[in-house]
Amino acid sequence: MTTLDTLGRKAKAAQPQLAVAGTQKKNEALLAIAQALESRQEEILEANLRDINHGRQMGMAPGLLDRLTLTPARIASMAEGVRQIVRLEDPIGRMDGATTRPNGLQIGKMRVPMGVIGIIYEARPNVTVDAAALCLKTGNAVILRGGKEAASSNMFLTDLMREAVESTGLPADSIQLVTDTARETAVAMMKLKYLDVLIPRGGAGLIRTVVENATVPVIETGVGNCHIYIDRSADVDMGVAILVNAKTQRPSVCNAAESLLVHADVAEAFLPAAAQQLWERGVKLRGCEATRRILGSRVEPATEEDYGTEYLDLILSIRVVPSLDEAIAHINRYSSHHSEAIITQDYHSSQRFLKEIDSAAVYVNASTRFTDGFEFGFGAEIGISTQKLHARGPMGLEALTSFKYVIYGDGQIRG
Amino acid sequence: MTTLDTLGRKAKAAQPQLAVAGTQKKNEALLAIAQALESRQEEILEANLRDINHGRQMGMAPGLLDRLTLTPARIASMAEGVRQIVRLEDPIGRMDGATTRPNGLQIGKMRVPMGVIGIIYEARPNVTVDAAALCLKTGNAVILRGGKEAASSNMFLTDLMREAVESTGLPADSIQLVTDTARETAVAMMKLKYLDVLIPRGGAGLIRTVVENATVPVIETGVGNCHIYIDRSADVDMGVAILVNAKTQRPSVCNAAESLLVHADVAEAFLPAAAQQLWERGVKLRGCEATRRILGSRVEPATEEDYGTEYLDLILSIRVVPSLDEAIAHINRYSSHHSEAIITQDYHSSQRFLKEIDSAAVYVNASTRFTDGFEFGFGAEIGISTQKLHARGPMGLEALTSFKYVIYGDGQIRG
Repeated sequence: MTTLDTLGRKAKAAQPQLAVAGTQKKNEALLAIAQALESRQEEILEANLRDINHGRQMGMAPGLLDRLTLTPARIASMAEGVRQIVRLEDPIGRMDGATTRPNGLQIGKMRVPMGVIGIIYEARPNVTVDAAALCLKTGNAVILRGGKEAASSNMFLTDLMREAVESTGLPADSIQLVTDTARETAVAMMKLKYLDVLIPRGGAGLIRTVVENATVPVIETGVGNCHIYIDRSADVDMGVAILVNAKTQRPSVCNAAESLLVHADVAEAFLPAAAQQLWERGVKLRGCEATRRILGSRVEPATEEDYGTEYLDLILSIRVVPSLDEAIAHINRYSSHHSEAIITQDYHSSQRFLKEIDSAAVYVNASTRFTDGFEFGFGAEIGISTQKLHARGPMGLEALTSFKYVIYGDGQIRG
Repeated sequence: MTTLDTLGRKAKAAQPQLAVAGTQKKNEALLAIAQALESRQEEILEANLRDINHGRQMGMAPGLLDRLTLTPARIASMAEGVRQIVRLEDPIGRMDGATTRPNGLQIGKMRVPMGVIGIIYEARPNVTVDAAALCLKTGNAVILRGGKEAASSNMFLTDLMREAVESTGLPADSIQLVTDTARETAVAMMKLKYLDVLIPRGGAGLIRTVVENATVPVIETGVGNCHIYIDRSADVDMGVAILVNAKTQRPSVCNAAESLLVHADVAEAFLPAAAQQLWERGVKLRGCEATRRILGSRVEPATEEDYGTEYLDLILSIRVVPSLDEAIAHINRYSSHHSEAIITQDYHSSQRFLKEIDSAAVYVNASTRFTDGFEFGFGAEIGISTQKLHARGPMGLEALTSFKYVIYGDGQIRG
């Protein structure tokens, strides 16, 4: 088994070739990957079947089994995803903001790859292809570490991509997989000095482990305790429609709403209308005392812990607040700083909410479900950053790049 | 003594007021600081004298004592530095790249403060004022942790700034100082959950301690093992002038040159001319075998360790290389990725060097000494980043900011 250190050295050695490869060459490699995904569909399904059978033996939950399962349609969609990345503009080499200084030095900012990117993720094998393709397009070498449930699929997909990349003259080691799925290996990866950045894609537990253990730079992603705040001036119908969408359209994802705040002046009008539609869709409600006074005992009492919880399930915490100030304070305290929305007809409230809420995406009169690289028009997404350093919110290609200053002189020395 | 945790909570509580304060209010506070520095000069000198006397008793080296010492001229220059920050454009609130999506959502990127910034630095008390002023201008609360040698000066300057800020109606806790100068407290600060980013300003030892211990996001700064490469086509006079400037104009700073690479074809012409001028200025040379064949035994042999060392002193390591490829490989291997320069008359060499060198600032025909926020025209500098995440090279005001997405809708839900 190849050690992590060897993977790191190989990635570092391969990356300079990627950095200077040029867009055309990188796109050739991506197209070779897309084609291999299509032409080797049968073998991919076989490798995936080994994971599925193993998962069934281990009594894996049906939801997880479904996420693990590849089908001809899902493989075609992976290939199409890679072709979409081919069509995106390559940020590498772009010069931003060139200036000439009084002493004649010309200073420009050149977009460059980050270098070697580590990605730790969970069960879905399509992430293996998606993440590798985004890194390749931006001239980064990538070291992937997927979940053990998808080990056979990930290994086959990585080998297929390495062959495709190599067939176009780029180094196979542009894409590598950590095949040792032990937890200690993941922790060791968080300290692997060859990584320029580590991106964990997964649940709150994984993110916490990374933050506590990593010595390499990290971009935290994906934990979303998202709020909808119904202002006193809200259009009730709009508020209900947005809340129901944000909570129920896809409850298992990070941009789904987990908590509802309602201004006291509109609570009597809003809560019964909202509760009816949420209950119809099987949502369980947990509320403060005021909520329970209005909606009755079908609403369970909400604890302090509820307000801090990302359920990823058909559960919603509710609190009635006396003011916009209180709503803002509550959100800034309990939120994971992902996405929050205010529903309001009031100009001043909308501006205060936008300005004072400290989250990656702040909405007026729209569903939090739009926080997504594709919905934002980036054409791709490697994850959604909930930290403020380097990248925040949906991360497209540019989040996988850095820059360097290039300076043209003709003999300048400092006086 | 206030615990770190209390400082963190106070900073977090004060910061929202700073975030919404507006440029005019923040500039008022900065001007109040500048004025207090001038009007309370005598008291500042008294506080500083306690540090100087203590330093003398402890047998502090003259160079360090000089860096620690404040004078009326140095205090005036600190005040002028703050006034310069007043005149800089405030990045906060700027909207970048607003777009309207097909569904009517308007998405903009709003520049916002990072939040709470921690800064760990060494002896010079002027950093206390400079760092606090830059953080204030960008709406960040700051927690400062200076060296124990300057404890009395730092405490007085911090109290003075807190009073000045408070006199304009902004929270005093915008600026706080860690008065406990124990090493364990510094390590605890690297794990303080209230920090949105920690910026260490100091030598290689401090940076390493931070990288190994920090659980909060970090921007590494300031370690500069900078190279000058003399290409085969170099103008020898220009090369000597740039090398002498980069090595000797101020040898104790991070953008000074530490290592010289010379193409074999030009070594016989270049090295004697360069050595003469360097020796005249007291520079000690450590070279490879080829260097010693040309310059003789006055050059000590360079070890592997020499090539990786930031001397910050009048010492230069030298290696003769057979090709541009070898020069690029050497630099990318040994450099701290700060600043490197090629001296060349060859277009192709210049372009390859700019493209393939993996450092924050890459020069053609100019001295590495220009890597500096003021020389780059930023008007200010909080440090020089040697990492690729978030900020790279000289960091001006913008490096102390993040952004959030603000989204204006009129009822959009996701289908």
